[in-house]
This record gives sequence, C-alpha cells and structure tokens, in this order.
Amino acid sequence: MAASTRLSYGFDAEVAVPYEEAVALTREALAGAGFGVLTEIDVKATLKKKLDAEFRPYVILGACNPPLAHRALSSEIGIGLLLPCNVIVYAGDAPGRSVVAVLDPVVQLGVTGREDLKPLASQVQGLLKQMLEHVREAAGRTVQPQTRN
Amino acid sequence: MAASTRLSYGFDAEVAVPYEEAVALTREALAGAGFGVLTEIDVKATLKKKLDAEFRPYVILGACNPPLAHRALSSEIGIGLLLPCNVIVYAGDAPGRSVVAVLDPVVQLGVTGREDLKPLASQVQGLLKQMLEHVREAAGRTVQPQTRN
Repeated sequence: MAASTRLSYGFDAEVAVPYEEAVALTREALAGAGFGVLTEIDVKATLKKKLDAEFRPYVILGACNPPLAHRALSSEIGIGLLLPCNVIVYAGDAPGRSVVAVLDPVVQLGVTGREDLKPLASQVQGLLKQMLEHVREAAGRTVQPQTRN
Repeated sequence: MAASTRLSYGFDAEVAVPYEEAVALTREALAGAGFGVLTEIDVKATLKKKLDAEFRPYVILGACNPPLAHRALSSEIGIGLLLPCNVIVYAGDAPGRSVVAVLDPVVQLGVTGREDLKPLASQVQGLLKQMLEHVREAAGRTVQPQTRN
C-alpha cells in the first residue's frame, strides 16, 4: 500500500477498504487523536437532493480539537472562517478502495499571514498526519473478503 | 455605518444589530443569494461544553451553492477539503453590535493552484459580497430600541 501523498493543500492516503469502512476507521482515528467531528456533509446525498445529480460516496467531516481551536479563536477572532479542519473520505476509482484526505492546517491558517499562529498550525498538522497514518495502518490490518463481482 | 472591510482571507461588516438578529439577517441573505446552510457550529456553546470556557456569541455557518460546489468537485475531487464556504457571525465588542464575515473563495480555492477554478471562485465571491451587502442594508433599516443599560 502506498504511503500518504502530498496534495498542495493537504495529505491523502488511498486505502484498500470499502467506503463505509474507511469512514468508520477515520472517525475512530480522529477520536483517538483528540478531534471531535463537529460537522458532517454527505456530499453524494446533498448533490442528489439539491440537484438530482449522481456522485460517488463522499463525506466531508469537520474536525476540531477544542483546546487548539480555542487558542486560535482567542488569538484571531475572524479565524472561525477557517475552522473546522476538514477531513474527507470518498470511494476510490477501484472497487473496494477509498481515499482519506486531511486539509493541511499550515496552508489553511497560512492565509491569515499570522506567523505567530504557525506553531499551532504545525501542531494540528502533526496530529492529523498521525491520524491519517493510523487509518492507513488499521485499513492494512483489515482482511477483505474476495470481491465477487 | 462603515462599509464592509477587507480581511486578508475574507470580507466583514460590522452591523448595528444584536447577535441573534444578525444571525437571522445573515441566514435570510444567504438563502436569497442561493446558498444553503449545510453546517452550523455554535462556537460559544461548543467551547462551553468541551472546555467549560466562556466565549462571546459566535456561529460558523457552512454555506454552499450546490451547482457551483458540484462543478468544483467534478473538476477536482479533493476540493471537498475546502468546502463549504464559511460565514461567521459574532457579537461585536460594543453592546448591540455584531460582525458578519465571509471567507473569500478566491483565497480559499487559490490554495489549489488551479487557475481554471478562478472564474468559479470569483463567481462565489461576488455572490457572497452581495450577500454581505444585503445584511448591511437590512441591518441599517432595522430600528433598534434604546439601549437601557
């Protein structure tokens, strides 16, 4: 299995588990890393409902580490525009595979131009990268049934 | 009343209405501009619950224009990391005043480095700036009772 790759604005990992399982593993890993999931958008269901458009299974989870968010908000009141930190899970192109990706908080908070927020952003980045590694490891331990179709 | 000002990563306007009313005006203006509110974080309540910390009234609304979000997602699958577009409302420093701010989608989607997404981002930016102007105007029409304390 490939290691996580670098997007220009985040990190992602393709895992050899189906979508629903990738979502469950991501939720567990987020909780383990101290992140609550404050928001959730079922993209597929939303596009179906609003536009009657078909889309692959895809969820946007808004992850928040409360003590770090509190520090950021206390330091810059407008920073709620950049919170929470998004984590996405979507069905991969190949059957039984999924992609998990996290927004890079260093890029996201970087748009504030506040150098003093960088250590905090780096701390969140470290936690999210670790979380992604946990998802990758947990998915690697999962024994998948043979694909029958 | 001052016109909207420019944050490095968004636009904001201070309005002479109390927080709850500013939230209601913002919801109306978002709906009028074709944005659904897909997520909502009551920052004050969340910080109280998770950390027992006091914070000013503050909400983060995740706004989404479904056709434009669909175009963005169809063009770049990872772009859910940057959606929805946040709109925040918080109680101002002075009693009876509030601040409404919107994330600048040109800055937000700019982190993808995708020049071809810029027209779409500019379109969303135009809609959100117009929305903010509507909030400002509606707040200006509101007759406020005399502050008694």
